[in-house]
Amino acid sequence: MNTVYLDNAATTRVAPEVLEAMLPFFRDQFGNPSSFHSFGSSRMEAIEKARGQVARLLGAKTEEIYFTSGGTESDNQALRGAVKIDSARRGIVTSAVEHPAVLETAKALKEDGCTLGIAGVNRNGELDLESLKELVNQQTAIVSIMAANNETGVIMPLAEAAEIAHEAGALFHTDAVQMVGKSPIDVHALNIDILSLSAHKLHGPKGVGAIYIKKGIKLPPILTGGYQEKGVRSGTYNAPGIVGLGKAAELALTHLKDTVVRERILRETLEKRVVESCPGSFVVAAGAKLRLPGTVTVIFKGIESEAVLTLLDMQGIYASSGSACSTGSENPSHVLYAMGVNYIQANSALRFSLSRYTTEEEIDRTVGTLSTIVERLRRISPYTE
Amino acid sequence: MNTVYLDNAATTRVAPEVLEAMLPFFRDQFGNPSSFHSFGSSRMEAIEKARGQVARLLGAKTEEIYFTSGGTESDNQALRGAVKIDSARRGIVTSAVEHPAVLETAKALKEDGCTLGIAGVNRNGELDLESLKELVNQQTAIVSIMAANNETGVIMPLAEAAEIAHEAGALFHTDAVQMVGKSPIDVHALNIDILSLSAHKLHGPKGVGAIYIKKGIKLPPILTGGYQEKGVRSGTYNAPGIVGLGKAAELALTHLKDTVVRERILRETLEKRVVESCPGSFVVAAGAKLRLPGTVTVIFKGIESEAVLTLLDMQGIYASSGSACSTGSENPSHVLYAMGVNYIQANSALRFSLSRYTTEEEIDRTVGTLSTIVERLRRISPYTE
Repeated sequence: MNTVYLDNAATTRVAPEVLEAMLPFFRDQFGNPSSFHSFGSSRMEAIEKARGQVARLLGAKTEEIYFTSGGTESDNQALRGAVKIDSARRGIVTSAVEHPAVLETAKALKEDGCTLGIAGVNRNGELDLESLKELVNQQTAIVSIMAANNETGVIMPLAEAAEIAHEAGALFHTDAVQMVGKSPIDVHALNIDILSLSAHKLHGPKGVGAIYIKKGIKLPPILTGGYQEKGVRSGTYNAPGIVGLGKAAELALTHLKDTVVRERILRETLEKRVVESCPGSFVVAAGAKLRLPGTVTVIFKGIESEAVLTLLDMQGIYASSGSACSTGSENPSHVLYAMGVNYIQANSALRFSLSRYTTEEEIDRTVGTLSTIVERLRRISPYTE
Repeated sequence: MNTVYLDNAATTRVAPEVLEAMLPFFRDQFGNPSSFHSFGSSRMEAIEKARGQVARLLGAKTEEIYFTSGGTESDNQALRGAVKIDSARRGIVTSAVEHPAVLETAKALKEDGCTLGIAGVNRNGELDLESLKELVNQQTAIVSIMAANNETGVIMPLAEAAEIAHEAGALFHTDAVQMVGKSPIDVHALNIDILSLSAHKLHGPKGVGAIYIKKGIKLPPILTGGYQEKGVRSGTYNAPGIVGLGKAAELALTHLKDTVVRERILRETLEKRVVESCPGSFVVAAGAKLRLPGTVTVIFKGIESEAVLTLLDMQGIYASSGSACSTGSENPSHVLYAMGVNYIQANSALRFSLSRYTTEEEIDRTVGTLSTIVERLRRISPYTE
């Protein structure tokens, strides 16, 4: 059975070129890049090449990129580091629809004595800039607003949010895990101070990510030790992973323009046909000004998403009911809740997330299978307005 | 040119079986283990298998193992977590010869208001238990003593150190990065509360490690987010890396008895022949009660280690002047300094670290090349008692 993978917001297939680039570093070139001997130290060239590849994707300078173990670590570093810079600035301001790596970290820091302000979103999942502005003040250390939401695909007004942060003298961080490689982002143009990204969301390997830190900002480390990455992030260089991230970034940049167009067309086809063929279904955040090309959440009124997912799964079609990042959580999405979607509807939400490998045939098959499944479930639990 | 890799304390070759085990998770089985769909969630079986493999190597229970990004993260989690458990216990006690991941973290926590006590070692690099006892008190949160030193290979008296910690009601942590897979260690027999290990030191991949936390101990996380690993360590599961660590642990356990014997014989041969053939050379910590089978530091009086390393490198022989973990550091080893070795001698230290792949022929070639190099350098700078 051919499978259809539409859960690329959770994780992506490793590009064959990425694995190819990594393999030598698992095989012969296994030396420790920090070694004095050439067998190790020559690995640093590959690391610096990867740093440049990541920088180019973000419009950053090479020396502004530091490697981490992934998006969660980068987010933790941003928040936990920022509140330690100045004891007079211990405030965090973020949004209600952030990934748990930001939201749970902000809450943990609140327990440690930081203040926490959480800005809301409108019915389309867009950041409420007025509410953000009210929360940011001279005690704010960092404003953290995601670049694009992992469930709705809504792209946030980063330049505006950054301006609000900077007016109050605070740092501006963005969790761009869902954005990087999927839609263009330029850290200097948007005036971003700190940015988190994860390799496995852009066809790179799991267990590696990066943090962009604007030149001049001294962000205290959260992992101390052997002073790798100029002390910003200690720990033996994960050479294969870093090389894989670099290659993934290079490929993402090469394909970016095409991918944006292709994914958008496929996603719009998917939306249109699903809504047409499944009565009582609607697209979440359909009215948002900007959305990711390839991520959409659809609510199928009166049907439990787990039932649909299970039946899709049996047909080899893999979608999601939201974030895969909250393991074992049975709570409905905090993102949809913040948008004013009620509990019952939130339990009927399905996320489809595409990649540059997604084909028209896969979308066809998904729509066909989905409408059969929804019809079948409607017979058990008919939808009435 | 055949190369001889004798820097296994810095990092090790990935075992072919380990890479083989990882590859499917880079290729077809790339789903997010936390996903609802079977394509992702079925990956959890592989993760749980790896957890069991690591647990068996340590004599731990499966549920006492949590995966991290490596030794540095595990060490940071141990120390940074421990001082947050009880506000009346904010003290850290460690030793002067720890890895920077412990020592620098302890110093960073001291700046945050924790107290720090550093126990000394004797001339053989062995922990001074009396000095440790004097430093531990009712305010001590955690005692952190490495299992084996990365430069000298000296094995520390963990059971005794753990007893001192427990008598004062403190937790006992060991950085066992150099010990695990190289020499037997049993966390329950030694009464260890928390243990750090790193995959790439035991023929596993870089960028993954584990932390053992004794059942019943609630260690606050340092990376918060999606609540993976029961909230102890958030972040998308690095499935290929974790599977690789599991396989590496299984292989280490299978080969452990043989490896210990083989490495010890080879290392003793190396020591004996180097000392015989290179006048003015001596083995560091030669009088220590217990040492790792395969790690030794030799001091070549009056010769700069960098010169020897460079000339060895030109012959394809890779050794080290100490830790590769302090990138770019030009300070002589803090380990040798703590043992009372003077500055000049510390700059003449060379570390050779073996693995289960090291052969007799490699040791032969190393000794031969080394004596030629030392003789050549002696002609420039003759050694006089």
